[in-house]
Amino acid sequence: MKNVIPQDTGSLGTMIDSILEPLPPRWRNWVVRGVFTIIMVSSFTYIVNRGTTWLMFLVFLIQFKCFQEIINIGLAVYRMYNFPWFRALSWYFLVTSNYFFFGESLIDYWAIILRKDNFLHFLVAYHRLISFSLYCIGFVWFVLSLRKGYYMRQFSLFAWTHITLLLIVSQSFFIIQNIFQGIIWFLVPVSMIVCCDIMSYMFGFFFGKTPLIKLSPKKTWEGFIGGAFSTVIFAVLLSFLLYNRPFFVCPVEDYYNDNTNCTRPSSFQWQQYAVGRPISWIYKILRKDPHIYMFPFIFHAAIMGLFASLLGPFGGFFASGFKRAFKIKDFGDVIPGHGGLMDRFDCQLLMGTFVNVYIQTFIRVPNPQKLVTQILWLVPEDQLTVFNSLKEELTKSGLL
Amino acid sequence: MKNVIPQDTGSLGTMIDSILEPLPPRWRNWVVRGVFTIIMVSSFTYIVNRGTTWLMFLVFLIQFKCFQEIINIGLAVYRMYNFPWFRALSWYFLVTSNYFFFGESLIDYWAIILRKDNFLHFLVAYHRLISFSLYCIGFVWFVLSLRKGYYMRQFSLFAWTHITLLLIVSQSFFIIQNIFQGIIWFLVPVSMIVCCDIMSYMFGFFFGKTPLIKLSPKKTWEGFIGGAFSTVIFAVLLSFLLYNRPFFVCPVEDYYNDNTNCTRPSSFQWQQYAVGRPISWIYKILRKDPHIYMFPFIFHAAIMGLFASLLGPFGGFFASGFKRAFKIKDFGDVIPGHGGLMDRFDCQLLMGTFVNVYIQTFIRVPNPQKLVTQILWLVPEDQLTVFNSLKEELTKSGLL
Repeated sequence: MKNVIPQDTGSLGTMIDSILEPLPPRWRNWVVRGVFTIIMVSSFTYIVNRGTTWLMFLVFLIQFKCFQEIINIGLAVYRMYNFPWFRALSWYFLVTSNYFFFGESLIDYWAIILRKDNFLHFLVAYHRLISFSLYCIGFVWFVLSLRKGYYMRQFSLFAWTHITLLLIVSQSFFIIQNIFQGIIWFLVPVSMIVCCDIMSYMFGFFFGKTPLIKLSPKKTWEGFIGGAFSTVIFAVLLSFLLYNRPFFVCPVEDYYNDNTNCTRPSSFQWQQYAVGRPISWIYKILRKDPHIYMFPFIFHAAIMGLFASLLGPFGGFFASGFKRAFKIKDFGDVIPGHGGLMDRFDCQLLMGTFVNVYIQTFIRVPNPQKLVTQILWLVPEDQLTVFNSLKEELTKSGLL
Repeated sequence: MKNVIPQDTGSLGTMIDSILEPLPPRWRNWVVRGVFTIIMVSSFTYIVNRGTTWLMFLVFLIQFKCFQEIINIGLAVYRMYNFPWFRALSWYFLVTSNYFFFGESLIDYWAIILRKDNFLHFLVAYHRLISFSLYCIGFVWFVLSLRKGYYMRQFSLFAWTHITLLLIVSQSFFIIQNIFQGIIWFLVPVSMIVCCDIMSYMFGFFFGKTPLIKLSPKKTWEGFIGGAFSTVIFAVLLSFLLYNRPFFVCPVEDYYNDNTNCTRPSSFQWQQYAVGRPISWIYKILRKDPHIYMFPFIFHAAIMGLFASLLGPFGGFFASGFKRAFKIKDFGDVIPGHGGLMDRFDCQLLMGTFVNVYIQTFIRVPNPQKLVTQILWLVPEDQLTVFNSLKEELTKSGLL
């Protein structure tokens, strides 16, 4: 395996290697790792500041690279390097499933950005049918490509491709949806994972004693708990820093409709909460107002921070188990000192999905304009039915 | 492998076996197969006549059995029979993904059947969050269960479970959605696959010369084409038989709301179509009305028939390739003379998905009542926005 999957060596080409040569190997590795951390963080900051479209392309780029890394491992595991059409089939499925997941929402997005109505409308209207037809082509292609003597490996790799697609494409779709909801919903979770990684390492380094899990022998309970605390605090602080900037908090459609501004969503507006019974007597004795003031996103950020630090690490454990199962050290060698992209993004995917579920459950409400469009797709008599029963309900609730 | 996965032997217990003993083995096999075909067809007819709820339970039963068959093959392939908790984990994921797929639609269904508003409402409102949490529990369970020396097999089986879930649960969800759209959307496709199987066999038996695909050496081009023709004709005939019976054509919500009746959906109402230019001159010479009369479902049925007979067989090729890959003859032995359930339902799954996509693209329109409910979930000012812009649009189009 190891000679097929490129592994990170920490080497940066002869010129830079010769500069670093006087350092002891352990130090050399730290310098490389440090330099590339700084490069990654600063390019990321730059891209975040360019806004939604750039971020979206970043996610796509990472998605493609991660897919490539995992597929290459599969091709190596099942010794299928000499089947070029099989590799082509995997990429075909990548494109198909991207269209399936992103078709509707991305076309909507470009319609907003380019201010066009009915932009590529047929790709949206017949979205499912087109996706399914594309998938069927791939499926027939696979069946026709079956070769005697390779059945088992071909089926295994077919399954491998599908699992990878499910893991990478669906989750990067969720992450892009989060970006559309407002960049803050992307930036805060991503930073939390990074913060949790660093702080767990620090706490583990200074106070670590009790081992946490056999799979990753270096992780300790002290690091785990210290990381969790720091992450929640960090999440709250970061929210304060960002909550009042339209660039970060506006959903993409409002931001572009309203000329780079929007009414701040209610999650980012200060609200007054009554202090619960068990503590309110303290406020009475102190003769203080028994209310606290905060914006709901602080609460959301704390919840996300808890998830990032308690469940996020399991994404990492999963990835290290996977690497052990297939006897590789890294997923690849794109980032010197760090390994492959998948080595860095194992926890980000799970986190992105959680944030997406959280948004869909507690934050996102159906878009009024979309509902109107849906009603106008109905046959005329149903349109009237909707109108009349809506009128009735609104009169009942006193809004009309 | 073969000693672990139960294989169909055509044996029916000593008593019946002794009755059939005088027959030569080839004939004996045909008798068993024939008897069980009749048993299956008649129980199926009985269940169809009991209506939606029974059909739904049938699909669930088949889903569970198919899942079990495939998981057992996986456990055998990776020699994981002595890990009882791994089997438990698979079933846990089955339940979780069933809730994920069926949660919303089934609870809606029971709300209609039991005539209850807000039936189990929290399971719908927090559906995604609950599914995700359940999934996370399974994920953590898997990570914690990783044992040194078993990593590769455990990961393979984890992937195996996920592929099976994707294949079985999502597609049986689509099939149940089709049933809800009207039993005809389930019955016609299912019968088409059966018809196509039988007719391909007959055509192949009598006229078969040219081999079709290496994977299934007995299939011929003559059978393939003959099967396709017969299936389309059969589909059209069956549509004529069923199109005017509310029991078959009504969507489930209308059928139960309207006391076992409904206004027939437009797909089942006779409509007049102008005959196209290239042929209309024939009508003119014959001094006949240049129109034809039909109901759209005939057209839909013909399309579905084409899919069933042209792409359906690839589901079967896929399944036989899979069986060869893992060196088994049948998926199991539940139906004597036929093998496992998966041996019978390989093509039905793909077909069900196609019908679902077809319905979603060309037939189904959003339910007016659901749209009203969605609007009433909005904040009051958005409710008014929807109402006013709807009013404006309806006035513009002259409906108000």
